[in-house]
Amino acid sequence: DRTLKVFTLNSNPKLAAEIAEQIGVKLGECSVTSFSDGEIQINIEESVRGCDVYVVQSTSAPVNQHIMELLIMIDALKRASAATINVVIPYYGYARQDRKARAREPITAKLVADILQVAGASRVITLDLHAPQIQGFFNIPVDQLVGVPILGDYWSEKEFADVVVVSPDHGGVSRARQLAERLKAPIAIIDKRRPRPNVAEVMNIVGNIKGKTAILIDDMIDTAGTISLAANALIKNGATDVYACCTHPVLSGPAIDRITDSPIKELVVTNSIPLPIEKQTDKVVTLSVAPLISEAIIRVHEQLSVSVLFD
Amino acid sequence: DRTLKVFTLNSNPKLAAEIAEQIGVKLGECSVTSFSDGEIQINIEESVRGCDVYVVQSTSAPVNQHIMELLIMIDALKRASAATINVVIPYYGYARQDRKARAREPITAKLVADILQVAGASRVITLDLHAPQIQGFFNIPVDQLVGVPILGDYWSEKEFADVVVVSPDHGGVSRARQLAERLKAPIAIIDKRRPRPNVAEVMNIVGNIKGKTAILIDDMIDTAGTISLAANALIKNGATDVYACCTHPVLSGPAIDRITDSPIKELVVTNSIPLPIEKQTDKVVTLSVAPLISEAIIRVHEQLSVSVLFD
Ligand SMILES: Nc1ncnc2c1ncn2[C@@H]1O[C@H](COP(=O)(O)O)[C@@H](O)[C@H]1O
Ligand SMILES: Nc1ncnc2c1ncn2[C@@H]1O[C@H](COP(=O)(O)O)[C@@H](O)[C@H]1O
Repeated sequence: DRTLKVFTLNSNPKLAAEIAEQIGVKLGECSVTSFSDGEIQINIEESVRGCDVYVVQSTSAPVNQHIMELLIMIDALKRASAATINVVIPYYGYARQDRKARAREPITAKLVADILQVAGASRVITLDLHAPQIQGFFNIPVDQLVGVPILGDYWSEKEFADVVVVSPDHGGVSRARQLAERLKAPIAIIDKRRPRPNVAEVMNIVGNIKGKTAILIDDMIDTAGTISLAANALIKNGATDVYACCTHPVLSGPAIDRITDSPIKELVVTNSIPLPIEKQTDKVVTLSVAPLISEAIIRVHEQLSVSVLFD
Repeated sequence: DRTLKVFTLNSNPKLAAEIAEQIGVKLGECSVTSFSDGEIQINIEESVRGCDVYVVQSTSAPVNQHIMELLIMIDALKRASAATINVVIPYYGYARQDRKARAREPITAKLVADILQVAGASRVITLDLHAPQIQGFFNIPVDQLVGVPILGDYWSEKEFADVVVVSPDHGGVSRARQLAERLKAPIAIIDKRRPRPNVAEVMNIVGNIKGKTAILIDDMIDTAGTISLAANALIKNGATDVYACCTHPVLSGPAIDRITDSPIKELVVTNSIPLPIEKQTDKVVTLSVAPLISEAIIRVHEQLSVSVLFD
C-alpha cells in the first residue's frame, strides 16, 4: 500500500490541517515563501518518493499567485518521484471564463486545466464547479464533490415552518432543485428581465413565495449584486424572511457591505475559500468541507468510487 | 504576406510602444484589466485572424501576475485564429530555478516553458537568459538576443583611459569576456571563497585592476548584494573607479540603497524591466532594447535569421 501524504499551500492552510487530521495523517512538511523579487520558492521538506500526494489549494484570490504556487508544487512533486499527484481544489478560480461569450475571449478555465496537466497533476478533486462542463477540460480524472448536502443539513436543523428555495437566476435552478428536495420544499426562480433596451431590469418572481421563508442558493457569491437584489425582490413580493447560502464565498469588492445592508438574515457559506477577518460579520456562518474532502481522499486512496459522496 | 501586429500586456507598455513605432505599426488594441475578485480580464479589440502576432511581456515582478497575463493572452490569440503567436519576453523570470540544486526542488524555468507552449506560443524572443540552457526547455524556436553590444556601445563612448571588465563571479566570465573584446580591455574575476566553513567569505581578485577603471558586468542585478561587495573589493584593491552594468535591473529589496551606498559611480541597465519612479536615482542610466527587439521582430517576420543580432 502506498503512503498517503497531504500538503497545503497558501490558500487554505486551516482547511488542509483539518483534512489531514480527519484522515489521520500529519500535514506534510513544506515551506512556500517568496524570494526578494516575488518569485515563489517551495521547499518540500520530507520524502514523497512513491507516495500518493494530495495538495490542497483553492485558486481563490490572489488567484494568479495561488495558481503558480500549485503549478510549482506539482512540478517539484513530479521531480521528487511522487507516485500520484492529486490536486484538491475546493474553489476552482477562473471558472466563469469557461466559454467564448464574445469574439477573441480567452477560455481561461481550460487554460488552467491544461497547465495543471502539463505540470504533472494526476487527478483533480474539486467542489461545485461553476459549470460541470469544466470537468471535460481535463484529460485526467476529476471528482466533483457537491456542497448542497452540507448546506441542506444546516437548513434542516433550523426547522423553518414554510420554506421555499430560490434560485437567483436561471442558471442555478438545478442546484435550487437539489436543495429543495432535501428540504422537501418547493422552489422559486428570480427572473431578471429587461423589458426593452435601456430600461431598468425587472425582478419577476416565478413561483409562490408569499408568507414563506426564502432560502436563496448559488454556487458562488462574488460582489453580491445579484443576491442582494434578489433578496430585496423577495421581501418586496411578500416573503417573510430571506436567508442565503452558497458554496464559494468569493465576496469581493462591495460584497460584505451589500450583504450587511440587505434583508438577508444569515448567509451560510463553506470554507472552500477562507474568509479573512475583515469579511467575518455576524451574518455569515461558515461550514467546513473538511469531512467531505477527507472522505473523498480516503475513498480515492482506497480506490473506491467517490460517487456516493455526491448526494 | 501576413500582417504583423504588436500587442503589449502590463509589464512593459512603454518598451512595446517604442518597438511598435520602430517597426512602423500601431500597437494592437487590447485591454488587460482585472475583475473585482482579481481574475485577469483580457479583451482583444481588433481582429488578429491570420496575423503574425508579437506580444511583449517580461515576466518581471509581479511575476505570477505577468505570467498569467501572458498565458491568457496567448490563449485568447490562439482561439482568435492568429497565424503565429510570438512571445517577446525581454526578461525571463524564474530563470534561476533552472535546475535541481537540492532534493525536491522544482525547475520552474522549465515549468514556465511548458505552460507557454501548452497555451499556444509559436516562438519566443528573449534577451540574455540567465542560463542559455533554458532555450532547450522549449520545443519551439527561441531567439535569444544579447545585451552586451548595447552596453558596450555605451561604455565605448565614455573613452575611459585604462579599463578592465570585471565579472562579479565565476558564472559571468564569458559575458565579461564579450564586453572586454568590444572594449579591447582585459578582464578580471572576483573569486569569492570561504577559506574554512563558518568563516567569512574572502573577495579575492583574479587579474590586474590596480589604477584602472573597473566595469562590472552581470546579466541581472537583484538585491545588489554581490555587485556592491564586488565594488568595495575592487576599490580596496586599488581600482580607481568602479562602474557597473547589467541587462536586467531586477533591483528588489535593498538593491537601490546598496547601490547608492556603494562606490559604484554609475549603473547602466536596459529597459527589459521598467524601473518604477522610486528606483530611478541619479546613478542609474537606462538604455533601450527597443531597436534590438524591433530589428529582431522584423527579421523574424521576413523569415530572415536573427543571428546577425547576436554580436
Ligand atoms: N472573475 C470574474 N468576475 C466577474 N465576472 C466574470 C469573471 N470571470 C468571468 N466573468 C464574466 O462572467 C460571465 C460568465 O458568468 P456566468 O454567466 O455566471 O457563467 C462572462 O460574461 C464573463 O465575462
Ligand atoms: N528569485 C530568486 N531570488 C533569489 N535567489 C533565487 C531566486 N530564484 C532562484 N534562486 C536561487 O538562486 C540560485 C541559482 O542562482 P545562480 O547560481 O545564479 O544560477 C539557486 O540556489 C536558487 O535557489
